[in-house]
Amino acid sequence: MNFLEEKILSDSIVKSESVLKVDNFLNHQIDIDLIDNIGDEFYRRFSDKQIDKVLTIESSGIAIAAFVAKRFNTPMVFAKKSKTTNISDDVFSSKVMSFTHQMESTVIISKEFLSPDDHVLIVDDFLANGCALQGLISLVQQSGGTVEGIGIAIEKGFQPGGSIIRSQGYKLESLAIIDKMDPKTGTITFR
Amino acid sequence: MNFLEEKILSDSIVKSESVLKVDNFLNHQIDIDLIDNIGDEFYRRFSDKQIDKVLTIESSGIAIAAFVAKRFNTPMVFAKKSKTTNISDDVFSSKVMSFTHQMESTVIISKEFLSPDDHVLIVDDFLANGCALQGLISLVQQSGGTVEGIGIAIEKGFQPGGSIIRSQGYKLESLAIIDKMDPKTGTITFR
Repeated sequence: MNFLEEKILSDSIVKSESVLKVDNFLNHQIDIDLIDNIGDEFYRRFSDKQIDKVLTIESSGIAIAAFVAKRFNTPMVFAKKSKTTNISDDVFSSKVMSFTHQMESTVIISKEFLSPDDHVLIVDDFLANGCALQGLISLVQQSGGTVEGIGIAIEKGFQPGGSIIRSQGYKLESLAIIDKMDPKTGTITFR
Repeated sequence: MNFLEEKILSDSIVKSESVLKVDNFLNHQIDIDLIDNIGDEFYRRFSDKQIDKVLTIESSGIAIAAFVAKRFNTPMVFAKKSKTTNISDDVFSSKVMSFTHQMESTVIISKEFLSPDDHVLIVDDFLANGCALQGLISLVQQSGGTVEGIGIAIEKGFQPGGSIIRSQGYKLESLAIIDKMDPKTGTITFR
């Protein structure tokens, strides 16, 4: 069991068969040593790749991505969620369905910050249906850049995002893959 | 001239007398070495204070606050912007007027993550009218915690937020205070 799986077992709360509460260390209050360790671990797992930019999406991916970028000695850029449907010409944009919030939104990134020369590591805190991640992949594709890899803190292995993205040929590394959660007993089963 | 003022002069764009574009290094694409240095500098300036939590607001404060918290060896917590007016009982909340977006929003933080025992350093990327900052101060006050200091990367000295907050007795440190910007010549005058 790795450090993140241990942290999940000790500090998270299973709210339902599909919802895990980790806001005391990962996506509201942040345990800085933990995300620093996550940065180290992604650096180790993607050390075979040439990475010159780390990409994430606001808000809860930002702190993790910042520490990953620190280890790779690259800039970090975060895509923004746009409320307006009126998208300007100077951004790449992608529509994303959020199952959590039951709404479609648009993620954007300024064209200044992704280019055909970029070798990108995409980082996020959670992977479930993979909609946000597909949006980020699309932004890189629109720029002509290369997705060198994808680093996820917690993957919900019982939802399809991870298997879809792996089947597309991407190197996807999730530090903790949860196969099953039982809200009655609080049991979490890792892959 | 310090490292942030030098970076502003070399890499920012004066869009108008009141708007400075820094999204290539501070609030869209992030220069990680720069915000790591900002973390070091706030650690130096608030080394006389007992800090046990760093507080910011999503999204552009998060990366900076993470590096500040790393230096102080504390957790970081970020307040969230809520779209719903329906605020639950388990959060502290504060209404914030955004002049940039000409709308009122609500910032919230789970009551789990601020307590009367907390000695808080508030961190953000920009200070202009100070509305977001007053919202964060209010969240700490509601919890009974103590605001030990406020660290801002760029303060627009020609807008009233900084002087109001200093007159309230807070230790406010801004790494770059801009007194004047001229969009015709691109000239930026620091205090």
